[in-house]
Order: sequence, then structure tokens, then C-alpha cells
Amino acid sequence: MKSEMNAICRAKGFKASARACGLKKNNRLDLAMIYSEVPAIACGMFTRNKIIAHPVKICKEHLKSRLAQVILVNSGNANCYTGEKGRAIAERTAGLCAELLKIQKKRVLISSTGIIGKVPDFAKISSAIPGLVKSLNDKDGSRAAEAIMTTDTHPKEWTRGVSIGGTTVTIGAMAKGVGMIAPNMATMLCFITTDAAIEYPALKAALKEAVDKSFNMITIDGCMSTNDSVIIMANALAGNKKIKLRTGDFAKFSEALSQVCLNLARMIILDAEGATKFITIEVSGAMNNQQAKQAALAVANSNLFKTAVYGENRNLGRVIAAAGASGAQIKENAAVKCSSLKNKFVKVKVDLKIASGTARVYTSDLTPEYIKINAEYN
Amino acid sequence: MKSEMNAICRAKGFKASARACGLKKNNRLDLAMIYSEVPAIACGMFTRNKIIAHPVKICKEHLKSRLAQVILVNSGNANCYTGEKGRAIAERTAGLCAELLKIQKKRVLISSTGIIGKVPDFAKISSAIPGLVKSLNDKDGSRAAEAIMTTDTHPKEWTRGVSIGGTTVTIGAMAKGVGMIAPNMATMLCFITTDAAIEYPALKAALKEAVDKSFNMITIDGCMSTNDSVIIMANALAGNKKIKLRTGDFAKFSEALSQVCLNLARMIILDAEGATKFITIEVSGAMNNQQAKQAALAVANSNLFKTAVYGENRNLGRVIAAAGASGAQIKENAAVKCSSLKNKFVKVKVDLKIASGTARVYTSDLTPEYIKINAEYN
Repeated sequence: MKSEMNAICRAKGFKASARACGLKKNNRLDLAMIYSEVPAIACGMFTRNKIIAHPVKICKEHLKSRLAQVILVNSGNANCYTGEKGRAIAERTAGLCAELLKIQKKRVLISSTGIIGKVPDFAKISSAIPGLVKSLNDKDGSRAAEAIMTTDTHPKEWTRGVSIGGTTVTIGAMAKGVGMIAPNMATMLCFITTDAAIEYPALKAALKEAVDKSFNMITIDGCMSTNDSVIIMANALAGNKKIKLRTGDFAKFSEALSQVCLNLARMIILDAEGATKFITIEVSGAMNNQQAKQAALAVANSNLFKTAVYGENRNLGRVIAAAGASGAQIKENAAVKCSSLKNKFVKVKVDLKIASGTARVYTSDLTPEYIKINAEYN
Repeated sequence: MKSEMNAICRAKGFKASARACGLKKNNRLDLAMIYSEVPAIACGMFTRNKIIAHPVKICKEHLKSRLAQVILVNSGNANCYTGEKGRAIAERTAGLCAELLKIQKKRVLISSTGIIGKVPDFAKISSAIPGLVKSLNDKDGSRAAEAIMTTDTHPKEWTRGVSIGGTTVTIGAMAKGVGMIAPNMATMLCFITTDAAIEYPALKAALKEAVDKSFNMITIDGCMSTNDSVIIMANALAGNKKIKLRTGDFAKFSEALSQVCLNLARMIILDAEGATKFITIEVSGAMNNQQAKQAALAVANSNLFKTAVYGENRNLGRVIAAAGASGAQIKENAAVKCSSLKNKFVKVKVDLKIASGTARVYTSDLTPEYIKINAEYN
């Protein structure tokens, strides 16, 4: 699965820019701006963690207006658990973007990722914002995707078109995240641009459906971040007939958006910290789909299962033990099948033998390299 | 913390024996028998996993009579997820013990630990049982403790006396478990003998209190086993005035039993697979004690927190993120403190700043050695 290039700038009227402001070491890109030439219908889905980063709180407030025009993202610092100082820095960052772009502050969304509990250096961020605004262009989508990375080994981008009433609508997206990935709402950062004309309720429903099928079905380490955000901006510049809920056009747009998100979710698992395997867990025979998901995630989050896959050690007892401890109903004659562990792509199928609920979840193995990365991360 | 020797045989009238029957490789001890000269009041606490090993099912049935006289334990095979064949082997094992000891079959308890999903070899077990019965003696408690080990690096035993109305009552116990440790009821195998004269309801209440304070407060990897069992036999041979519920004697006995279990629980964490640190997590300021435990366990089970401790990487953001994701109520100004990570013993204190609920949980760090052990285990 190869990342698309410049995805975030593919839809009409979207520009991006990126800078290294010094929040990350070694002059790596750490600030990205995504801009729509006109105000866009916007909505988001955010972490369910009770400790919430300041930028997430600001996004939630600003998105009440259902319109946005710019997203500023920094890596290298999560601006979470940083108290009043952190809150003030987030507000000043949004304010400065609004001032330089000459837009209302509530049209500015901000997002942060990186270490939790350290107040970010506002001087570094603020000194880079004028340059970001000046250099906005329609070619720097991949640089923006690179600027939001933390321990990711490569940028994650995806794009596709969908025909709505004869007019091509484009969806582009970029995501980051390879650790602290757990399925509760969005589980990383993902920013999506589209030139679709679409009503707010339809955009919101399509985003929820896409996230539930993708980012809510992956887990790397069961650790839920404080900053997880998925944000979509739809600026209507494609000129299509406006997409409304419960129409054929909605179904087409929703399917396309889901596919973009699923591809990014799969890229996150493929790039999971220290991972050597991409594991698909399919549960069937559950009481209902929710219990199937519960059992699948229990297996996916079992350290014993994940280390066994890493060791190419066919220990299906660990699968059944994890499913049995998940809380989902399970019969004693539940069946477990597993493809060869020698391959990079491993598929595990569990039939709980209760009823007909199903779920498919993606995860990675647990390796000494994951520990090395996270023992040293700061 | 040094293990006591011969703990299981310290109380009057208890004998033990151990054998290598070939379930484990390299002629290591893998069968243990614990025997009371007279029928003992007995009760147990068992795994909450929905997939339950056959020996656990048999124990639950036999314990309905509230009396037991012998416990046979094997390591090297969990006899779980082994279908009708496994069930028959468990029944035949119990039957053979009863026959050779000339006691009712329902007075026999059996217990297994080891790999899940493989039918154990009954010929190996059955051929060793006559020798186990013949060699029962009051000196082999430590050999029995060794025989129940899987990846444990040493036997875990503890004993203490308590004066009940001027008569000394003795409690001895042995435990195993260093992985697949999670707090839901008992979380490993533990067998306790005492010569106390005690009424059944009092014994049951004391055991529950002891387990809730000890084995239910430790976690290594959040993986709940299918075989977890804590069993106590009280044979009344100390001749003390019978202990009844809600008396001063009950409080003394209960406190002593809790201390024995807590010491064994701490030994399990000290010997956790691949661990280099012993971590105590104290949560205060929670809505109630249950929420405090929930938050403490969420931190204790966070791979990101555990790897950070391994790396001696002071990343308190991971503590707050895990507590925030636990579901427990938490204020934004929650406080996290941590002792030096350079030491083997690390203490983390989290004040949720909501109300006055508290909990103390014990765990270990997550290391490349844990992965190595579990990637290769079979």
C-alpha cells in the first residue's frame, strides 16, 4: 500500500504549507497548515479520553459554527496536561492564524501531537506562522503530511474521486499515528479535505460511518491518546449538486470517504511502532456486532497473543483465552483458525458459536522494537 | 522478600509430594500433591474467564460439598480448550487419586497450568500418581511449590502463625504465576493450608477479603488466565476455639491470611516475566474505591507507561493519559508524582482530585525479555 502524494491539496481550493519551527529536533518539519480558499463546512470526531488536550477543546468550540477555513497542526508537543499556560498558548496560536489570514478566529482549527505534559514553546510556533501563511500553495500536501508525524516512519496520505451527478468530487486525507492507538472514536490525527458540496448533517453522518469502519477498528497498544482528532472540511468548490442525507449521492460519497479512512487506518497499522506483522482478526458467531468487536479487540490487545505472533509461535490457546476474557458470550467449542505466521499478513478467524454478529479488527504484533521506541521516546 | 521453605506443610496434618512425570521437558518437577490427614473445610476462588479449564470446573463441583482432602496440581499443560477428551482426563485423574487414597472422589481437587489447547497425556500423569501418594510427607512443601511453576524463576511460598484464643494456628501457602496475570478474581494458582478450626462462612469471607486485597490488585500483562484458582483447606487440627464470622478471632485470622496472600502477590510481581521494576501505583482522590482501582489498573496495564518505566524515561504524561482513558472521573488538575525511576522499586501516586476513593495496585515494567519469553513459550 503506497501513500498517495499531495493528497490534502487534491480537492479544489485547498492549499498547504509546512515548516520546521524547532518543536522537533534536528530541524525536522513540525508545523503544517491546511487552508481552504473559502470557508468550508466542517466537523470532527475526537478522543473520548477524559484528559483532553487544549487544541481539541478549541476545535470542539470552534466547530460549533460548523464552518472552518484553516487547520494548523504541530507535532513534537501535545499541549495536553499543560494547565492555563497551555490553554493560553493554544488560544494565541489560533488568534495569530486568524489575524494573519484575516479570518474570524472561530474559523481556525488547531491540533497538536507529541509528548504530554510539557508546555510548548509559543515563540517557536508564532515565529513560524507568518511563513506558513505566505507559503500556502497547492503542491505541499506531502510536506504537510510529513510535518504531523511523530514516530511514524513515513507520511500517510490517500485520495480518491467520486462522481456525484456527473461531477467529480475529490477527497484527500492525511493521517499520523503509529503508537498510543486504541479504538475509541478517532485514534490518531487525520485531516480530510473535499471540494464536495454537502449538507452539514450528511457530512457528519458520512464521517461517523467512515471512522467507525476504520479508525475505530484498529488497535496497536490499547492506549487511547488525549489528542485524537479526525477533522473534515468540505468547501463545495467542485460545484456538484449538494449531497443530502439518505440519497444515492450520500451513499456514494460515504462509501468513498470510508474507503479513504480505511486505507489510512491500514497504513497506520502497517507502520505500527516496531511491528513486523499486519494482523486481521475476524470474529463471527457473536451475540451481536458489538460483542464481536469486543472479542476481536480483546484478542488484538492481548500482549500474549501479539508476542506469540511476533515469535511465529502458533499458540491459539492465547486467542481463545483472550476472547473468553473479553466479556463477549462464547461457547466452549468456539473455533479458532489462523493463517501461516511465517507471512507478514496474518489472518485470525474466531467463531464464537453463539449467534451471527461479526467484526473485523486490525492490529500489529508486539516486538522488542516497540519497547525500544517507547522506552526512549520523549 | 525471601520465600519461606516448606510452607504448605507447616500447618498440622498436611503433607505434600512432587514428581516429574514428563509434562514439562528436561525432567523438571511437574506434579504436586497436597494432602490433609483428615477432611478439611475448603473453598476456592476461580477465574472469571468464560473459557474455563476442565480442572477448574471439577473443583467448583467438588467444592459444593465444602470439604476436601487432597489437591493434585500439574504444570506443563492447562487442560483447557481440550474438549471431551480433556474433560475425561481430568475426571479420571481425580478418580485415580480418590481410589489410591481411599477417599470419596468429591474430596479430590485438581488444578492445571501450562499451555492452553493441547490435550494432556494421561498416561504420564496416571503413572506418577501412585508414587505421589506413597511419598506424601511433611518435608516436601518446597518441592511441591517448585512442581507448579511454569515460567516462574523460583518457588513462591509464605507462612505465618496467628494466635487464636491462646492457641497458635498456622497458615501456609504456595503460588505460581509470572505472566497472564490480570486482576479478576484470583489471577494465578495459589494453594493455602491451615490447621485452623473455622466455620465455612468465615473461611469463605476471609479468603475473599484476602484475595481482593492481594491477587486482585496485581497485574502483569492484563491477560486473564483460563485456570486461575485460589484454594484453601482448613483441617481444624490446631485445636483452637472455632473461628466464627464477625468476631475478634475472625479479624485476626483474616488479617493473617490477607498478609500471606499479599506477600505471595508481591512475589509474583517481583518475578514477573522479564521484569526489571516493581511498580506500586497508588490512586487517591477518586469518586470511590472502585474507580480508584479502575484508574490504577489502567495505568498498570498501559504498555506505554510500562515501557517508559523500563526505559527509566520520566514520562508522566502517559500516566495521566492512561488514567484519563480509564473511565474513572478525573479533574484536569489531577496530580501525578513518581519516585526515581533509577531504583528497582518505583512508586507512582495519582490524585484524581474528585473525592476520597483510594486503591493500591502492583505491577511490573514491560521489557524486551517479556516478549522473548512469550514469543518462544510453548
